[in-house]
Amino acid sequence: MTQRAYLDHNATTPLRPEARAAMVEAMDVAGNPSSVHAEGRAARALVEKARAAVAEATGCAAGDVVFVSGASEAAALLLAGRSLQGAAIEHEAVGAWTDESLPVDSEGRVALADPATATLQLANSETGVIQDLPSGLAVSDITQGFGRLPFSFDWSGVQAAFLSAHKFGGPKGVGAVLLQPGTDLAARIRGGGQEMGRRAGTENLIGIAGMAAAATAAQAELADGAWARVEILRDRLEEAIASAGTGLIYPGRGAARLPNTSCIAVPGWKGETQVLQMDLAGFAVSAGSACSSGKLRPSKVLRAMGHGEEVATSAIRVSLGPETTEDEIMRFADRWTAALNKRRARAA
Amino acid sequence: MTQRAYLDHNATTPLRPEARAAMVEAMDVAGNPSSVHAEGRAARALVEKARAAVAEATGCAAGDVVFVSGASEAAALLLAGRSLQGAAIEHEAVGAWTDESLPVDSEGRVALADPATATLQLANSETGVIQDLPSGLAVSDITQGFGRLPFSFDWSGVQAAFLSAHKFGGPKGVGAVLLQPGTDLAARIRGGGQEMGRRAGTENLIGIAGMAAAATAAQAELADGAWARVEILRDRLEEAIASAGTGLIYPGRGAARLPNTSCIAVPGWKGETQVLQMDLAGFAVSAGSACSSGKLRPSKVLRAMGHGEEVATSAIRVSLGPETTEDEIMRFADRWTAALNKRRARAA
Repeated sequence: MTQRAYLDHNATTPLRPEARAAMVEAMDVAGNPSSVHAEGRAARALVEKARAAVAEATGCAAGDVVFVSGASEAAALLLAGRSLQGAAIEHEAVGAWTDESLPVDSEGRVALADPATATLQLANSETGVIQDLPSGLAVSDITQGFGRLPFSFDWSGVQAAFLSAHKFGGPKGVGAVLLQPGTDLAARIRGGGQEMGRRAGTENLIGIAGMAAAATAAQAELADGAWARVEILRDRLEEAIASAGTGLIYPGRGAARLPNTSCIAVPGWKGETQVLQMDLAGFAVSAGSACSSGKLRPSKVLRAMGHGEEVATSAIRVSLGPETTEDEIMRFADRWTAALNKRRARAA
Repeated sequence: MTQRAYLDHNATTPLRPEARAAMVEAMDVAGNPSSVHAEGRAARALVEKARAAVAEATGCAAGDVVFVSGASEAAALLLAGRSLQGAAIEHEAVGAWTDESLPVDSEGRVALADPATATLQLANSETGVIQDLPSGLAVSDITQGFGRLPFSFDWSGVQAAFLSAHKFGGPKGVGAVLLQPGTDLAARIRGGGQEMGRRAGTENLIGIAGMAAAATAAQAELADGAWARVEILRDRLEEAIASAGTGLIYPGRGAARLPNTSCIAVPGWKGETQVLQMDLAGFAVSAGSACSSGKLRPSKVLRAMGHGEEVATSAIRVSLGPETTEDEIMRFADRWTAALNKRRARAA
């Protein structure tokens, strides 16, 4: 049996060895970071060491990194009750708190009138399209971009940003909010006063240790050129698939994109069908965002880019990781093209 | 060097071997539970297996277990905006959302007029005092009681309850809300529709696996009589300490208490001082709740029980676990008594 190929890194990523090792080590730290005794101080030291590592990797001051349970909690913490403007291409965890009114062009780029009252993602999970974040932007969801393209929170001039560990080789269920110094943030989870009063609750020690190790490793990998190699593979994949002939649409291909993401639509061939056929053939890819479990709806992202319902239900996302091999993407291109040709032959 | 004795199990507990093993195993499950492909389905199966285990351990229907990031998030989810009545002895994560108006007697027991509009903890973290939860109670924080005393959510007749894994040998940063069937719960974290629309965000797979394993192990241990043995040790500790003479106060000792908790006050001997002296001597104990990092304030719990400021600043909590040994508590009683006698000799 051929080994399966995991080509769904925008949904979630395998745990990095560095994150695993840090988590296993943290399992031996028994104290509560809020306790004053030796066991508590050891736990506190672990949290603060992790905070410093995340700060270093993201370009944020350590005192302004707030650990949370993931990007969805971060979005609620930064957006609830603020009526910021956002676009319909944002993740649903962001869209839930905005009016989704900002205009999107045909390549998925968002136009902003007033950055100070808007939220804008760094990169899109479905198309990989990268946004130009204006200085003074109120909030940015950098979840899909962090670790895959050069980004420094400090240099960005963005007021607040957030990310989730499981998109760059850390564990699921932990993330961070990054704030510019002096930014006010009213806690939505209250009580013990943790995270400088910005987010109460005993810290997810093991998860935080994993996130920090993953963030450090992700930045080292980026600096090492890993994603440039991924981009070459992604482009080869698109070339190989293009050989299947006409009628293929690549939403967002005209814009700057993440190096690892291909969004491919074959009008009339349902994305869900493609995903299931490829799953049976040994490939994990997705149709739209993985965060809306089981829902079978046209992609809001593609609709916002002006695509009709047929295209918006016929797209798949193939998202590679640093460990993806040429063999994997070539096998995928073969199987996918074969399935498409078979479908066309039947229709003829 | 003598090994340290960890006597602060109400602050947090060491990770159980069962939880560690389940977490390490979950590290190999790479998919997103919301993804439809094989990797996603494996992750979904792990979450649902864990949910069934937590349901079984708590006496809740599996469909009504909502995984969250811990007790503080759970308290906000169940209490924010509802103006329920609560007592000042509740944890601060609960107190933040109530008026703290419910009357508390001198042994720490709370009187409830209308359970349907009230929140009441199962057991107190500082004194161990157990409450009689009336059927129809709106919300109960069962964090300190679960696994240490017999409790079935279904039988309790409580409308909603919550617990945190790190109090019974699971990891920090994961907990659950338990609901009676048909209970409405508006999500505070929105987006992907996870947890049946009650709590969005990619699931903390590794933490959830650890929580489930810990819950199962905790219930088995309780059934096995482990906490009856702990109670014998706790009572021996209090006898040994009583030999230090008069002037000792045991807040809540007249009420039903958790089997593992001793709250001891020596008027005039600051709790913080005791904690630091005992820490240097190799014992981890605490003064009040560990959740208010670094704050040096009289215990709200003892104040609510009618104790004056002097008593409320002079209490320590010693909380044992199933692995606590007789040698540990006898060594602690010796050192603590010696410190107290030295202090008295100096004052004399």
